[in-house]
Amino acid sequence: MLRAAVVGASGYAGAELVRILSGHPDVALSVITSRQYAGVAFDTIYPALNGFVKLDCEGSELTAVAKNSDIVFLALPHKASMAMVPGLLDAGRRVVDLSADFRFNNRDAYEAHYQAHTCAHLMDKAVYGLSEIYGEKVAAADLVGNPGCYPTSVLLPLLPLVKEKLVDPATVIADCKSGVSGAGRGASQTTHFCHVNESFKAYKVGRHRHTPEIEENISLFAERSVKITFVPHLVPMTRGMESTVYVATSPRVDEMLIRQCLESHYHDKPFIRLLPGGRFPDTLHVKGTNFCDIGWVVDPGTGRLVLMSAIDNLVKGAAGQAVQNMNLMFGFDETAGLSGVPYPL
Amino acid sequence: MLRAAVVGASGYAGAELVRILSGHPDVALSVITSRQYAGVAFDTIYPALNGFVKLDCEGSELTAVAKNSDIVFLALPHKASMAMVPGLLDAGRRVVDLSADFRFNNRDAYEAHYQAHTCAHLMDKAVYGLSEIYGEKVAAADLVGNPGCYPTSVLLPLLPLVKEKLVDPATVIADCKSGVSGAGRGASQTTHFCHVNESFKAYKVGRHRHTPEIEENISLFAERSVKITFVPHLVPMTRGMESTVYVATSPRVDEMLIRQCLESHYHDKPFIRLLPGGRFPDTLHVKGTNFCDIGWVVDPGTGRLVLMSAIDNLVKGAAGQAVQNMNLMFGFDETAGLSGVPYPL
Amino acid sequence: MLRAAVVGASGYAGAELVRILSGHPDVALSVITSRQYAGVAFDTIYPALNGFVKLDCEGSELTAVAKNSDIVFLALPHKASMAMVPGLLDAGRRVVDLSADFRFNNRDAYEAHYQAHTCAHLMDKAVYGLSEIYGEKVAAADLVGNPGCYPTSVLLPLLPLVKEKLVDPATVIADCKSGVSGAGRGASQTTHFCHVNESFKAYKVGRHRHTPEIEENISLFAERSVKITFVPHLVPMTRGMESTVYVATSPRVDEMLIRQCLESHYHDKPFIRLLPGGRFPDTLHVKGTNFCDIGWVVDPGTGRLVLMSAIDNLVKGAAGQAVQNMNLMFGFDETAGLSGVPYPL
Amino acid sequence: MLRAAVVGASGYAGAELVRILSGHPDVALSVITSRQYAGVAFDTIYPALNGFVKLDCEGSELTAVAKNSDIVFLALPHKASMAMVPGLLDAGRRVVDLSADFRFNNRDAYEAHYQAHTCAHLMDKAVYGLSEIYGEKVAAADLVGNPGCYPTSVLLPLLPLVKEKLVDPATVIADCKSGVSGAGRGASQTTHFCHVNESFKAYKVGRHRHTPEIEENISLFAERSVKITFVPHLVPMTRGMESTVYVATSPRVDEMLIRQCLESHYHDKPFIRLLPGGRFPDTLHVKGTNFCDIGWVVDPGTGRLVLMSAIDNLVKGAAGQAVQNMNLMFGFDETAGLSGVPYPL
Repeated sequence: MLRAAVVGASGYAGAELVRILSGHPDVALSVITSRQYAGVAFDTIYPALNGFVKLDCEGSELTAVAKNSDIVFLALPHKASMAMVPGLLDAGRRVVDLSADFRFNNRDAYEAHYQAHTCAHLMDKAVYGLSEIYGEKVAAADLVGNPGCYPTSVLLPLLPLVKEKLVDPATVIADCKSGVSGAGRGASQTTHFCHVNESFKAYKVGRHRHTPEIEENISLFAERSVKITFVPHLVPMTRGMESTVYVATSPRVDEMLIRQCLESHYHDKPFIRLLPGGRFPDTLHVKGTNFCDIGWVVDPGTGRLVLMSAIDNLVKGAAGQAVQNMNLMFGFDETAGLSGVPYPL
Repeated sequence: MLRAAVVGASGYAGAELVRILSGHPDVALSVITSRQYAGVAFDTIYPALNGFVKLDCEGSELTAVAKNSDIVFLALPHKASMAMVPGLLDAGRRVVDLSADFRFNNRDAYEAHYQAHTCAHLMDKAVYGLSEIYGEKVAAADLVGNPGCYPTSVLLPLLPLVKEKLVDPATVIADCKSGVSGAGRGASQTTHFCHVNESFKAYKVGRHRHTPEIEENISLFAERSVKITFVPHLVPMTRGMESTVYVATSPRVDEMLIRQCLESHYHDKPFIRLLPGGRFPDTLHVKGTNFCDIGWVVDPGTGRLVLMSAIDNLVKGAAGQAVQNMNLMFGFDETAGLSGVPYPL
Repeated sequence: MLRAAVVGASGYAGAELVRILSGHPDVALSVITSRQYAGVAFDTIYPALNGFVKLDCEGSELTAVAKNSDIVFLALPHKASMAMVPGLLDAGRRVVDLSADFRFNNRDAYEAHYQAHTCAHLMDKAVYGLSEIYGEKVAAADLVGNPGCYPTSVLLPLLPLVKEKLVDPATVIADCKSGVSGAGRGASQTTHFCHVNESFKAYKVGRHRHTPEIEENISLFAERSVKITFVPHLVPMTRGMESTVYVATSPRVDEMLIRQCLESHYHDKPFIRLLPGGRFPDTLHVKGTNFCDIGWVVDPGTGRLVLMSAIDNLVKGAAGQAVQNMNLMFGFDETAGLSGVPYPL
Repeated sequence: MLRAAVVGASGYAGAELVRILSGHPDVALSVITSRQYAGVAFDTIYPALNGFVKLDCEGSELTAVAKNSDIVFLALPHKASMAMVPGLLDAGRRVVDLSADFRFNNRDAYEAHYQAHTCAHLMDKAVYGLSEIYGEKVAAADLVGNPGCYPTSVLLPLLPLVKEKLVDPATVIADCKSGVSGAGRGASQTTHFCHVNESFKAYKVGRHRHTPEIEENISLFAERSVKITFVPHLVPMTRGMESTVYVATSPRVDEMLIRQCLESHYHDKPFIRLLPGGRFPDTLHVKGTNFCDIGWVVDPGTGRLVLMSAIDNLVKGAAGQAVQNMNLMFGFDETAGLSGVPYPL
């Protein structure tokens, strides 16, 4: 059994990693850490897991983590990851980092939106863990920068179309909507029930840090530098992310060509579900799963393509994709630990 | 006191009309009708209003309605309105129709998306009741076609900018989100709690009937025929509508020019609230009110304008605007009946 | 116009006071204070009230508050109220205190559940502001201890029955359910959306501090010392409180006798709505109002009486009842400021 | 592999059976039926299961069902089950019936609350499928009457205490709260999102048909006929049921004795989780699982015992317990198909 460590297990992405890894057939969850809850039994933080996780949270001491693990998942805030990654790699551990610290190839873009990078030499070495797109590189990687939730939901429907030049990448507008768990476990006015309930609103318009992450990947596939418009919104629900992406199409592109393109890229990808015509992705249908459901319409009035995707922001948008990447890295079945039957509601 | 009738009072828009008119200082609610609930006390359908509305629902018989009213609000499905309007006008009543039947000038557009129009000669006579834009015409009208909720939320932030040529109307993309009350009171899978809760999804993509209504009004202000992309989404909340509208700007347009334009059009409009820079409209802040809150950002990466509005779909998006139109028609204070202090949460 | 001050205006009860007083026909809101938000415009804390409340929050300095007000509402935590009340009374102000500090006659009971009382001599002077029960005393009071939300919801249906000996007060079990706003505006795990959504649970079982408050009032009406069982629960909704109270009846008591008793006590009370047989109180029907809806059933199998009430915890359970008490104290119409037409949904 | 049929697969309990059986290691889901959706692919009704369930719904023809199954789950309305059970048993099939038709031993009680029983001779043969209590009988049964959700949640914490005479069964009051999925998939005003959201209310007070089901089982353990008070409430959430049960204790019973009693009965029951002192069951912690979490407090003021339980009404309250019973009947591991790691949120 592969020994897996989750550093930062008390946050939502960390807890979801604990859930998935606890049910993974090829993995033993060996270490979980939480600075805030060091010494505390995990199932007192998340009582749902009473009987399934018997570990206590430890402090995030690098040596102990490295000693007791083969793979390390870092579910830490930006910057905290950078501090641990070099040591873990030096100790021979493979790392999936869920922060933004290793998602970028372009150091300037990273530093413009986050902070100075303290181990920029590893940025090249790191593979961007969008599993369906970069799966082969992921398989060989020692360090995976696990994608953000918004980038995952926008890039999966879009990249094949950009690659095959069916759409004009300079026209991309991504109108995205996230459940509240995306804001993390920290208590704040933003996440207060009475502030969220019956509320729908945009936030960080024009300045969300997932913008450059999306742009870097579109640019790579477009083979030129591309800027997009990305607006995130908050939905009064716990889990789920829906993205509606607007993009101009190339001449003679119709819904069937879109389908052919997506099918040719994704027919062997177990977590992509292309919906039949006239059906649109619904966060309820992917809740708790690693699926990305994709639908699309060519708007009859304007000819614009409307691409829609739905994911669970904590699973395909975070912990699930991280485990999917681990599966690729260690040669496990890509769906191992991620194949539970979805709930009908 | 003006005698007001609400035809179709048991639906959500009708019930909201009953609420507002019951508290209106210049109006006596004289007749309410409901085919389904004829003979039933209104407060057994909506027990919240126990003690405030003592009327029973009557059948929707035209003569009785006309006899006992000065103004008639029709909160009926499309087509049912057409059948009543000519008779009511002939009887000398003024009418605010909340269906789509009298929202269009363009008969072809109406018939392409709805059905044959049985009194097309009244389409020209009818005034489109977007109060802040067509207030003067409304004041003189005998027949007002009250706007759809989505068109209200999209047109209010957009029309002044189109008129002053600050934006390119051919580039409009409206990504709109509505609470569940927009689907009406009828029970269906669509409105089942377990179907809505934790669900976010687009619907009727590329074929919602509010599209031509929005297009007709933008075209009028653009002085040319314009098509837009409009995608509605359903949000797990009862009331509220947020629209995020993307549009290319003319050269040298910045956030300040947008503000100047909107302020010059709306400075004397009591139900428009222009938000300070960096604040975005939130459905929670307009819940139960007739306000349309408007915010905007020029996306720094692409220069696109992102316009955002929030309304209560049942108030400014339906019953509230209908009463505002009545106020204009009868020379009441524009805010009469609509000036309650909003709830902080 | 009476000048009213709200001390602690940024909390939920305080904000609700600001809302109600801003629409009150006989009152001018003259001072609002908030230690946390001193110097901040109220409508940046609660943007819904943009255009309605133009005051900034001040610090809670006693002299300034007293100077600019005739009535002072204290929406402060327990203990903070005690520190201000003597000074305000000395300055000749009348006070409605929403904390627990002046709800008790029994000093020992207060001190056993809260802390040492620093102005116990005022406990006798204070009137318990359960408006429908103690209205005459409230009218003459300088200091009103405004009831807790749970006690209000339990005592209103119960006290008339205890007084007329239709029920055995020693058998009272109160199973109560509250919306999340009852937990206050402070951010915590308890109020995090993801913690509340899809969650229903009891809390503080057997040790909630509203227990002695309920017991003191039942005991008074029973003319003997009575203990009750009270269990509060948290409901995933913003506003609302439902209480289901179980109590053994005296011989030959049936549903009609219950109705007669409640009607004789409440027929002239504008905020009590006794439901027809077979209808049960629903928090949705009292949302945003000062009503207490009451229903009841004599359980056919056991003969136990099941009493149910619904209130809005922030209105009848806090700010609304506080204003109702002010109305009584100053001879205003009891419903002044509280007579808005309820929303149908 | 055991061949399993689900009759009535399109309802919520049926769909949940489909989910669980699709992931069961020892079972092949062979037939699913739905009168309403005959001929329709299951995953068009429940798109979440796209890729997991490839069956179409069939009509509910008895011969076809019997032919292609070894075990039949009936997720039908009351009365419809009665019509199928004799034929299925005659064909040698074992049956778990989720309706009320075979939950009662007492024919009179059944007929008083439901309707005439058309195969009363099978009522004795049927075993009441409260797995933890009647597991041995279930193992040998051909026909299991699967318990109602409310009875499951009330009886599991209560029956051991009644059996060991720690409580007085004549004093039981069960105040129960259910998520909306308990009302079924049918669209109605009751389940309309706008009717449920921000609503909490009791329903069917004193006349819910789960009352006699609870009473029959308590009476059996009390060895005398007992009546209880049971009040169900509706909570604005999809899944989950919390029951707060009040009961007088025998002399000298304290919280520790309660624990000892429950532990001695349940220490080897994998789906019962007894919470540590001071922790109370939360529906969020059992969502999607077959667990029944149990907590309790002896109310310090009155000495009454407050028992609390939380289950997922669709799992332990319906489909999960049905599969647990099948596991017992066929000698599978009791947790087979039901051992997925719970979601932390």
